[in-house]
Amino acid sequence: MTERQLTLGIDIGGTKIAGGLVDDSGSVLDCVRRQTPGHAVDAVEDAIVGVVEELTGRASAGSYGRIIAVGIGAAGWVSTDRSTVLFSPHLAWRSTPLRDHLAQRMSLPVWVDNDANAAAWAEYRFGAARGHDTTACVTLGTGIGGAVISAGRLQRGAFGVAGEWGHTRVVPDGRRCVCGNRGCWEQYASGRALARAGQELIEVAPAAASALLATVDQDGPRLTGADVTAAALAGDPAAIELVREVGTWLGEGMVTIAMIVDPSVIVVGGGVGVLGELLLGPAGERFTAALPGRGYRPAAAIIEASLGADAGMIGAADLARTKLS
Amino acid sequence: MTERQLTLGIDIGGTKIAGGLVDDSGSVLDCVRRQTPGHAVDAVEDAIVGVVEELTGRASAGSYGRIIAVGIGAAGWVSTDRSTVLFSPHLAWRSTPLRDHLAQRMSLPVWVDNDANAAAWAEYRFGAARGHDTTACVTLGTGIGGAVISAGRLQRGAFGVAGEWGHTRVVPDGRRCVCGNRGCWEQYASGRALARAGQELIEVAPAAASALLATVDQDGPRLTGADVTAAALAGDPAAIELVREVGTWLGEGMVTIAMIVDPSVIVVGGGVGVLGELLLGPAGERFTAALPGRGYRPAAAIIEASLGADAGMIGAADLARTKLS
Repeated sequence: MTERQLTLGIDIGGTKIAGGLVDDSGSVLDCVRRQTPGHAVDAVEDAIVGVVEELTGRASAGSYGRIIAVGIGAAGWVSTDRSTVLFSPHLAWRSTPLRDHLAQRMSLPVWVDNDANAAAWAEYRFGAARGHDTTACVTLGTGIGGAVISAGRLQRGAFGVAGEWGHTRVVPDGRRCVCGNRGCWEQYASGRALARAGQELIEVAPAAASALLATVDQDGPRLTGADVTAAALAGDPAAIELVREVGTWLGEGMVTIAMIVDPSVIVVGGGVGVLGELLLGPAGERFTAALPGRGYRPAAAIIEASLGADAGMIGAADLARTKLS
Repeated sequence: MTERQLTLGIDIGGTKIAGGLVDDSGSVLDCVRRQTPGHAVDAVEDAIVGVVEELTGRASAGSYGRIIAVGIGAAGWVSTDRSTVLFSPHLAWRSTPLRDHLAQRMSLPVWVDNDANAAAWAEYRFGAARGHDTTACVTLGTGIGGAVISAGRLQRGAFGVAGEWGHTRVVPDGRRCVCGNRGCWEQYASGRALARAGQELIEVAPAAASALLATVDQDGPRLTGADVTAAALAGDPAAIELVREVGTWLGEGMVTIAMIVDPSVIVVGGGVGVLGELLLGPAGERFTAALPGRGYRPAAAIIEASLGADAGMIGAADLARTKLS
């Protein structure tokens, strides 16, 4: 019997590292999840190496197959040669040669990609966007990640920064963003935006926010986007209203995606994406109402991602595999 | 001697129709220019057929070569099969099967494309963007046309609407646009925006606007973007200031292009593009100041188009040629 060839996918976000052993059909055979250890470059690299070693050990112990490459999906903008993280809004990478740093510590080929690119690739290859050769993905976590697939190819742009709609401006002189600018879309339609809206409600109308306050033991500033998401899913009317507000901004930004990329589907994933119709309903209403030429042009379908939290690791693993063939 | 094979390119904007006999190196052997005859679909089609007949006659009389196809660059969004104008913000086309209408009246293959796509293709094949496989074009006329070339291919999107950044929103609840929405980029950075800014100045500060008023015989509402452009090129400080304002908005929207498409060059063409450094200077300043991750990522170069008013016809002709090979 031929030994199965696996690739290892590592998804590194602002708060979590997830690694998985992935086969050529996109199935995750085993996985590991950890908190991102602060923002220091060295600590994050150590954590990645730790995840790789643990999964390599498990692959060997479990006789899953042979690992032939490692794919990294990193929350940052990655050079087109897939070696260097140019800039990360949420982590400390600045022109960091992540691939070389990691390759020196592993005996496997390593390829680095943007985390949202990796997640989008997974949804296109194995998930909700299968068959859609022009796909845009919006990954809603703490911020907004994005990626474009066109003619069945991941679009990296000339410098590796394509699809970064989280940092397109939706409000002139608007809210300050982690990237250093103001008015970025991710300040209005992301986990951070949900948290901010919840904290505002707590401050201005604590009675209306009682269910939200209860989730954080009456300590408003602790409220996260995940707390608001959970409260909305549990049926709290105030949280649902906040989600509607953020969903409307989501739809607003999707118009820009439709006008520039013109995809047949816009796939919404990430931690906030689990809100499903509570979020996508208002987004779709706004999108439909604001699309230029509406009624005279087909409109992209707005759909939920289907691979959940595994998308990043699956896509990173599959992108590393494509470099070997 | 083998007869030279030519294609005929027709560029149809909101105000002008231009047609040219183009060879395979992008050279225009002969051309015709007319005013767009109002907004009626039939009248525009008649005018196109008139231009084709005139150029066909000239090709025959001048022994230029044999015309093998007609390419149309139309100021509207064109279906991906290049047959139908889905919607035109500036003309009357609404789901209009322009290719079939024209093909019935000509004995030549006809292909329809978006006018800005055609101009961009010409700049990529024969003009300022040669060698830049990831190119974005911004065509500044009455409105803003746009097009994306990626991996050396014109990106049409899933429905033919890709690159339409003129109608992305830069100001929530902003100025009303011909497309029916509010706050579109083309209301802030186009010929129309220049005209509006000039008319405002005339109303509020007629003394400062004396040079502008002189160009329209003291009849402020008649002032066009072309008038402001001419006054700025002639050195009028008030007009130069208006161009700076519009240029700053131009740079602002270019950040969105950089974040989504990530091209190596952004080519600026169209009638307002002749302002050159007067416009691109302020645009570049704003672009550089507002680009997320600036200093940690290469930035697109902002450059002037080089084919001038011929770009649309050259590109439409060359795109028709590519369908035959």
